[in-house]
Amino acid sequence: MTVRVGVIGAGTIGQDHIRRIAEVIPGGRVVAVTDADAARAGEVAARLPGAAVHPAARDLVAAGDVDAVLVASWGEAHEEQVLAAIGAGKPVFCEKPLAPDGEACLRIIDAELAAGRRLVQVGFMRRYDAGYRALKAALDDGSIGAPLLMHCAHRNPSVPPYGFSTEMIITDSAVHEIDAVRWLFGEEIVAARVLRPRRTGRAAAGLHDPLIVLLETASGILVDDEVFVNAGYGYDIRGEIVGESGTVALADGGQVIAASAGQRAGRVPAGWRERFSRAYDAELRDWLAAAARGTAAGPGSWDGYAAAAVTGSCVEALRTGDRVAVSLPGRPALYPEAG
Amino acid sequence: MTVRVGVIGAGTIGQDHIRRIAEVIPGGRVVAVTDADAARAGEVAARLPGAAVHPAARDLVAAGDVDAVLVASWGEAHEEQVLAAIGAGKPVFCEKPLAPDGEACLRIIDAELAAGRRLVQVGFMRRYDAGYRALKAALDDGSIGAPLLMHCAHRNPSVPPYGFSTEMIITDSAVHEIDAVRWLFGEEIVAARVLRPRRTGRAAAGLHDPLIVLLETASGILVDDEVFVNAGYGYDIRGEIVGESGTVALADGGQVIAASAGQRAGRVPAGWRERFSRAYDAELRDWLAAAARGTAAGPGSWDGYAAAAVTGSCVEALRTGDRVAVSLPGRPALYPEAG
Amino acid sequence: MTVRVGVIGAGTIGQDHIRRIAEVIPGGRVVAVTDADAARAGEVAARLPGAAVHPAARDLVAAGDVDAVLVASWGEAHEEQVLAAIGAGKPVFCEKPLAPDGEACLRIIDAELAAGRRLVQVGFMRRYDAGYRALKAALDDGSIGAPLLMHCAHRNPSVPPYGFSTEMIITDSAVHEIDAVRWLFGEEIVAARVLRPRRTGRAAAGLHDPLIVLLETASGILVDDEVFVNAGYGYDIRGEIVGESGTVALADGGQVIAASAGQRAGRVPAGWRERFSRAYDAELRDWLAAAARGTAAGPGSWDGYAAAAVTGSCVEALRTGDRVAVSLPGRPALYPEAG
Amino acid sequence: MTVRVGVIGAGTIGQDHIRRIAEVIPGGRVVAVTDADAARAGEVAARLPGAAVHPAARDLVAAGDVDAVLVASWGEAHEEQVLAAIGAGKPVFCEKPLAPDGEACLRIIDAELAAGRRLVQVGFMRRYDAGYRALKAALDDGSIGAPLLMHCAHRNPSVPPYGFSTEMIITDSAVHEIDAVRWLFGEEIVAARVLRPRRTGRAAAGLHDPLIVLLETASGILVDDEVFVNAGYGYDIRGEIVGESGTVALADGGQVIAASAGQRAGRVPAGWRERFSRAYDAELRDWLAAAARGTAAGPGSWDGYAAAAVTGSCVEALRTGDRVAVSLPGRPALYPEAG
Repeated sequence: MTVRVGVIGAGTIGQDHIRRIAEVIPGGRVVAVTDADAARAGEVAARLPGAAVHPAARDLVAAGDVDAVLVASWGEAHEEQVLAAIGAGKPVFCEKPLAPDGEACLRIIDAELAAGRRLVQVGFMRRYDAGYRALKAALDDGSIGAPLLMHCAHRNPSVPPYGFSTEMIITDSAVHEIDAVRWLFGEEIVAARVLRPRRTGRAAAGLHDPLIVLLETASGILVDDEVFVNAGYGYDIRGEIVGESGTVALADGGQVIAASAGQRAGRVPAGWRERFSRAYDAELRDWLAAAARGTAAGPGSWDGYAAAAVTGSCVEALRTGDRVAVSLPGRPALYPEAG
Repeated sequence: MTVRVGVIGAGTIGQDHIRRIAEVIPGGRVVAVTDADAARAGEVAARLPGAAVHPAARDLVAAGDVDAVLVASWGEAHEEQVLAAIGAGKPVFCEKPLAPDGEACLRIIDAELAAGRRLVQVGFMRRYDAGYRALKAALDDGSIGAPLLMHCAHRNPSVPPYGFSTEMIITDSAVHEIDAVRWLFGEEIVAARVLRPRRTGRAAAGLHDPLIVLLETASGILVDDEVFVNAGYGYDIRGEIVGESGTVALADGGQVIAASAGQRAGRVPAGWRERFSRAYDAELRDWLAAAARGTAAGPGSWDGYAAAAVTGSCVEALRTGDRVAVSLPGRPALYPEAG
Repeated sequence: MTVRVGVIGAGTIGQDHIRRIAEVIPGGRVVAVTDADAARAGEVAARLPGAAVHPAARDLVAAGDVDAVLVASWGEAHEEQVLAAIGAGKPVFCEKPLAPDGEACLRIIDAELAAGRRLVQVGFMRRYDAGYRALKAALDDGSIGAPLLMHCAHRNPSVPPYGFSTEMIITDSAVHEIDAVRWLFGEEIVAARVLRPRRTGRAAAGLHDPLIVLLETASGILVDDEVFVNAGYGYDIRGEIVGESGTVALADGGQVIAASAGQRAGRVPAGWRERFSRAYDAELRDWLAAAARGTAAGPGSWDGYAAAAVTGSCVEALRTGDRVAVSLPGRPALYPEAG
Repeated sequence: MTVRVGVIGAGTIGQDHIRRIAEVIPGGRVVAVTDADAARAGEVAARLPGAAVHPAARDLVAAGDVDAVLVASWGEAHEEQVLAAIGAGKPVFCEKPLAPDGEACLRIIDAELAAGRRLVQVGFMRRYDAGYRALKAALDDGSIGAPLLMHCAHRNPSVPPYGFSTEMIITDSAVHEIDAVRWLFGEEIVAARVLRPRRTGRAAAGLHDPLIVLLETASGILVDDEVFVNAGYGYDIRGEIVGESGTVALADGGQVIAASAGQRAGRVPAGWRERFSRAYDAELRDWLAAAARGTAAGPGSWDGYAAAAVTGSCVEALRTGDRVAVSLPGRPALYPEAG
């Protein structure tokens, strides 16, 4: 069965997912597009044989030939769009964040609980990355013993000089480690702190970059996450888990090693699209497979909610300088264990 | 457009390609299967909605609903099956070898020339591997200067104790480096030698394993290829090109590095399926895209022929101990430059 | 000129330094030994042609044929012994700590200032390690831009089950990163925090292992140091400095890579003696060269004092859970810049 | 005991050894110098307290205060100088080659046999390199099974445009792999071939660079050695031994890894002095220790002879293009097993 997909939001990420469904993975076909910018929606749809343009998200969600919805609009709009899809009983893939705050996420959870089955997948693609999956496999097979702490680094070459705030270092970047930590260790994050190292002179005025985000899990695992969005040299995602009897770390990952001019060098990815290309493929493949069965797989509403709660605590910790606890209600039985 | 594929040969590789078309890549659907073992063909087809079983390859090729043919039968049968597909004007993907000897390959070339367009792709998947493509990119961007020599190693953990001859180390294993060398350097191989290092005690009686195959290209690039099919520790494909100003080599490629018990270690792949999984995906994706246009892309009949000619010279060199020249007729204009 | 060395303390480290002077490096000869255990002093001296045994440190320091003094006794005794050497105008190498607390270190500084020239070298051997020197060279040549933060890990395979307290994780282990940080960045540490990750079950009762020590330098560089003294798998010292335009990290450092049984692995050192063997050689070579000129080089009393002050703040931070400031008096002109 | 050393040849290598004895290692003192260029000998001796200048090698060897002789003159002079030292019963360290041809080496062996004890050490420093020692340790502990073949590369950044012939690629460069192979495997080399890959345009006219030297040992181990003396990018020594159950290879060996400008890079040594600095220290330390006992250790006359015999066969193989056998007489009992 080919899942007929309606895409809300035809910007960079939306177009990338459309290309993926059209050319890279099987099982889906984009039949409808909408965007706040109608002209852009039209241009994108024109390249997709038989795809309709809808004036608004609600029309697209309601369209009879749309089996499943992919939300790639801006975060503020997610709640309404995801609720609409749930209301229509249609599987929905929502780019992170599920919604900008925990309250909104809880409303989505309530709607999904009312629907009685999982319909929402959140775009935490790292769970589909071969490196992260190998970390988890090493944890799960016991080869490093019980995990005690984890070191992470999340480095972007740069962010736009305007419109990227210090809070966004947490909500846009660190949120990926927040979800990954929950998934890797299968437990919730219970407290957070944010430290401010010396600021790079290459960040825009008012942006405190880099940050160190410290996370504590329920069992006491301590995670330090360097988040540096103007690291300059490339897009570099590092992770090392330290256990009672050993450690496991993400490998460097280049394809070749070149020796020239006195050095031996491998490539650092230029950006997240290069680094996580395969993971994006895999998450959408997984989504389409579940959508064909009328449900959702992978990271769901609870994960979107927990991430929002932790990022909220981190933002407060950034503001106050204090350790801020995270408090979550009980997890509904619809959702599997953390991670 | 979805290409309707008929598969000849439902063994290990054939089934793997069927799974790939069904689950991993878009653009194709397997509608017909045949196999020398009719029961096996039936079982495989039963798992594919709407797929027919044909009693013989010729019936499958002739079937009206088969747009393109995938040949994964044993090498002796390839010539007849590929010629049938060409005769029917249908694109055909043929696992290596294109045919067991150069004469047979030339008959395929003649048929394709008569058809007036490329219809054949040969299964040299390394051309689609990210590592090999990065080697070629480094060559092509001039970062190591003009290439002078290349070191290769091709190590399998083991081969079956019966039925694998010393010649097959060349025809089944080294053939991959032979094609890769032609493609990387864009020139033909003009001579070959085969050396016999000390024999491993872990090979079956009568099997001289490992071998060193030495290849010379038209411009004098010298390639040494260690081919070791009972290497024991894993499936390990190494390659380093030495140029006038630097070198470029395949990286190790594991996902994670684990530290435990006094060492820091990465994984070596267990076999070719693990190592080249992405490359197989990419070659079939490329094939289906070309087949949808009624033609073929990637490695073609000429490459299949050149590989057969060079492996023939290697086999003679293995037998005689001498340097054996490779002589090729002129390349028809239908085929792009070597590689 | 051969420097005639008197050694105070003939335990493991003292004997290792004696072996080094006798067999590995030029420029010195051990002519006198003393130890709280007189029998041990006698046994060690008996293997050194012409070496005398002295009943007490003060006798050894006063001996006319002793040109310079090497202190490898326990930390509580250092102050008195170093002061005696300064009083006698003799160069003295003192294993860390220079003295157990900052007040004692300041008394040594006063004595050295009164002597009018540097006489004391402290055993911070990492300043002589090729890896650390390469880190510093990369910082100093500007190749990573201004430093912003540093990640360290200091892992011992294990510590004895009795007699090793949580405080000692700071005073015995983290003290090496504390000195290295001051030296690498050429600035003082101004505040410290200590975090307690989940505790390993392999530590002795009462030992909270591992710890994360957080250090802030005068310019705001933030250093996180994982100190894990029961890491099990080996002795592993990691360090990565993150600058405005790039990073530089200690390499893995093994001599060979072995592939077997599905993995490719390098060795992790078994202990500090293996890891820093060359650095110990170099620090003593440097010391003897300076001693031959009647003075001292490398890390000195001020560095010993600063390390004691910072470890003191760390110990308080461990106890209270708070961020604790470090306050240092002005640095006397006798001592070069921090580090 | 301090060995009083007389040095014959005060050029680059001679001065480097003098510096080493004076400043880096214990146990020796240079008391006499001679050189074909008397002025140079005088300048070098002037920097060594109490060192005499001798007009000729024979005077230096005969001098009563010279306990041992270090020969760093040009190869043509070695035979006479080494024979003089043997005649005087004095231990002698001789830079490679022991003598330019096998016949001369045999005369040295005869003299040493007549002296009744080992007096000669040849400067094959790789036997003292930590990387090569780790290769040998891996072989000896059985971790890769029985060795079957070895891949080597020996790359210099460049050689002087005049005076470096194609034969010297073998006699000056490949000779190091020739000795290392004998030592690693503990067996003699019985045949050699030399192949000519495409020539680099960066070599001087008349120099065929690089070469591939193929060596066969008595048990059939096959070694391919790429020798490339104008490799441009650095001084790079590679080695991988392939055994029945695994492989072991020299590691990359840099001290730090730097990430900047889209890549992650380690340093390649600039030259042999940087690469083998520690090995030179260790070989002279070993020599002085043996000389203090009136004898020699490490690689000896037999190793110098075997290396000369194999390089002779290689030079013939270079000229003829054929496989050339190496024939050695029986090894006298004075010398331990090959290697």
